[in-house]
Amino acid sequence: MKLDKSNFSEWYDTVLRESGLYDYGRYPVKGMGVWMPFGFKLRRLVLDNIVRRILDETGHEEVLFPVLIPKTLLEKETEHIRGFEGEVYWVTKGGHEELDIPLALRPTSETAISYMESFWISSYKQLPMKLYQIVPVYRYETKATRPLIRLREVSTFKEAHTAHESFEDADKQCKEAIEIYKRIYDELGIPYMINMRPSWDRFAGALYTVAFDTVMPDGRVLQIGTVHHLGQNFTIPFEVRFQRKDEEVDYAWQTSYGISDRIIAALIAVHGDDRGLVLPPKVAPIQVVVIPIPQKDEELDKKVREVAKEITEGLKEKGWRVVLDDRDDKTPGHKYYEWELKGVPFRIEIGKRELEGELTVARRDIRKRTKVKREELDQKLKEMSEEFFNNIKEKAWEFMRSRIVQTDDLEEAKELVEKRMVVEVPWCGRKECGLRMDEEVGRVLGMPLDKDAKVKGKRCITCGREAKVIVRLAKTY
Amino acid sequence: MKLDKSNFSEWYDTVLRESGLYDYGRYPVKGMGVWMPFGFKLRRLVLDNIVRRILDETGHEEVLFPVLIPKTLLEKETEHIRGFEGEVYWVTKGGHEELDIPLALRPTSETAISYMESFWISSYKQLPMKLYQIVPVYRYETKATRPLIRLREVSTFKEAHTAHESFEDADKQCKEAIEIYKRIYDELGIPYMINMRPSWDRFAGALYTVAFDTVMPDGRVLQIGTVHHLGQNFTIPFEVRFQRKDEEVDYAWQTSYGISDRIIAALIAVHGDDRGLVLPPKVAPIQVVVIPIPQKDEELDKKVREVAKEITEGLKEKGWRVVLDDRDDKTPGHKYYEWELKGVPFRIEIGKRELEGELTVARRDIRKRTKVKREELDQKLKEMSEEFFNNIKEKAWEFMRSRIVQTDDLEEAKELVEKRMVVEVPWCGRKECGLRMDEEVGRVLGMPLDKDAKVKGKRCITCGREAKVIVRLAKTY
Repeated sequence: MKLDKSNFSEWYDTVLRESGLYDYGRYPVKGMGVWMPFGFKLRRLVLDNIVRRILDETGHEEVLFPVLIPKTLLEKETEHIRGFEGEVYWVTKGGHEELDIPLALRPTSETAISYMESFWISSYKQLPMKLYQIVPVYRYETKATRPLIRLREVSTFKEAHTAHESFEDADKQCKEAIEIYKRIYDELGIPYMINMRPSWDRFAGALYTVAFDTVMPDGRVLQIGTVHHLGQNFTIPFEVRFQRKDEEVDYAWQTSYGISDRIIAALIAVHGDDRGLVLPPKVAPIQVVVIPIPQKDEELDKKVREVAKEITEGLKEKGWRVVLDDRDDKTPGHKYYEWELKGVPFRIEIGKRELEGELTVARRDIRKRTKVKREELDQKLKEMSEEFFNNIKEKAWEFMRSRIVQTDDLEEAKELVEKRMVVEVPWCGRKECGLRMDEEVGRVLGMPLDKDAKVKGKRCITCGREAKVIVRLAKTY
Repeated sequence: MKLDKSNFSEWYDTVLRESGLYDYGRYPVKGMGVWMPFGFKLRRLVLDNIVRRILDETGHEEVLFPVLIPKTLLEKETEHIRGFEGEVYWVTKGGHEELDIPLALRPTSETAISYMESFWISSYKQLPMKLYQIVPVYRYETKATRPLIRLREVSTFKEAHTAHESFEDADKQCKEAIEIYKRIYDELGIPYMINMRPSWDRFAGALYTVAFDTVMPDGRVLQIGTVHHLGQNFTIPFEVRFQRKDEEVDYAWQTSYGISDRIIAALIAVHGDDRGLVLPPKVAPIQVVVIPIPQKDEELDKKVREVAKEITEGLKEKGWRVVLDDRDDKTPGHKYYEWELKGVPFRIEIGKRELEGELTVARRDIRKRTKVKREELDQKLKEMSEEFFNNIKEKAWEFMRSRIVQTDDLEEAKELVEKRMVVEVPWCGRKECGLRMDEEVGRVLGMPLDKDAKVKGKRCITCGREAKVIVRLAKTY
């Protein structure tokens, strides 16, 4: 099998399958796949070591709601249901009976959570209430499905839902959510743009939507997180009322923010190379593989295996996720290939020379060997983990930055988007012109919040009027 | 609120709600509830620290399958679908379209997993394959629902699925599964009987079913785990074939075994008392609460709070799950009541005396205070955790043992089951007599595998013929 990341689409499917991450395309429901043991471990490390940890540290509490939402509930907020009704899966039968009220497989949980908040919240003293859950959500997608990118069963959806005393508090919470998502993606070394989505591309029921976008290896943009200010759009129909400090009764103000399976899709896509996965040590299911090099001399071979075992055990004790690969029916070369495909950050080869002298540690990211004294192994691996991570993170950011360009010219913008670049262009701010860009140039990602884009003196690329903002356009997933 | 465990049904519902574990009866779909933050933490500790750990240690690998199973797949094993068809939820619509093939919300995953195994398994070298997942399953129950005991959304179902080379290997795996379930329930101090279910009460599609049963405080028996030998019942229709060592091709042999939300239901029911939850330290979301006792003297009060904080921080550093309750608007008595309800194993009260002298640690299980030197706190808490756990475990086992009695008389058996006892009676082994016991006396739990029940010389309580086995009968959930 030959991998070639410049043919990203094929590379991605092959790596998912061959590394044992996610079995896609064989499960007999379109747009749904199976997390395999190796993939499940990666998913769990990303969720537990990063997502859950950071949410818990910032005062969020995890809950778990039912997957089924009655139609009557889902329809209570009209704009919301309008945004989702075309792609909801409906349960209509239980056993042999028709259900009185169809039940939706949750496409997202604002309605279910707001309904329960109406029981839970009564006083400002309970606010802010910051909940989250990590659950599957369902969308009957009509677009082409892609593993972990566009699924009908989004098997991993971290959705946070918060309730506040005022518009301003909810607004502040959106800013906190943006900081949280920065931390999450920074810890994975995944580069991002932060874009304020245009009005026509908000979450159904939101006052505004801020999105995290990354650039995939083929230059297309992938949305990897969204943050919504929901105002009182759900709390009014669901009657989530509370008594304020001044004893007036008001409806609570909400936000919601979500990250899906795409966090794993981006992790794979952004760091991988022509040999397969490259995983940050912090989330790699296997951080170190130890491989004894077979020796012709029997005595020596035995010794090499013993030392390999000792080193494996030693690392295990220090808390490393380490595997000893002492299979007899595979050559070292074959083993290297397999573990490189799985993105194992460090490989320790134990041969004759390593018995007495220093150990040889090969780094997956730069594919270079380093000599390490045995007694310094733990410490060196820690240092190398940091260097490893900084290197892949820097490379990923460099790539993304190289794909973002500016132009004031409509035709050039079209050409650049055609070449799969993200273009930043001046815009007058009128929806009419925005929709024209959406149609003729590329999807309007929105206004950059991650940099101070100068707009003064510029003119809208579609109408030539004075520009009010810079917007990013790109071909998206 | 007054708790009275002798009125178990009310006690159980009240404790679930008031301790903040599980919100039941308000979510607008019958038989489905919401895991609240405190309950979610308990659930997670039980799953991560016990269930996942033990399954991982014994070579099981976690995977994640879609929740939807096409009707065509579910129907492939005829006995299986007959067992479930009355209680399957069906998704029939996606958006505004009727689906070509209805999709079931999984009632269990044998069919989905067997289908995928037909791709994955080709050689004996891949066997045994031991997979598990922790997922929600769905049953359109017609019986009365009860929180965490009989739900329409069983929010937590740990289902293991294994494939083997031979009948014997699968049989051995069932024995391993029984050992695993013993470890799991032993670590939670939950007593169990192990019963070989009678032929008419097997899992739909199994050669045999072994169940773990516990006795609830009201004397009714709750099934808390099952282990099934599936033979080749699924691998033949799903064509899970493999090449044996002797190069012949055979169908794989399977087992499956599951534990549901009932693990939490049993944990709550078995250990709780008239003050609420009593949680084993290993899984208690909060293991220690530190409460400063308010002092009239301002200086002294400040000092008490400081010390309380220091002790909390010290315990946190040692890895304890500890909370400092320094709320001003609650009396110590009110705080005691709240934390006792939540089953926190240890309470440390910091008053004037504790500033200089020893600390006072109150144990939740026996409700007694002990003096502990501050420098010995960590060590003492460890010892007390063990004593705590041994005490509640022993008490729980004593209770269960006291509910199991023997009789050779049909009328007495009826009376005993009426009194909510588990009775062990001799049985001739004929289905006819078994079904009569089921109908007239109590549910046939099956033949005890946890003890050597003497049957020699005894006669079947229904027909008077020579008895072949002892069976247990009881009123069940």
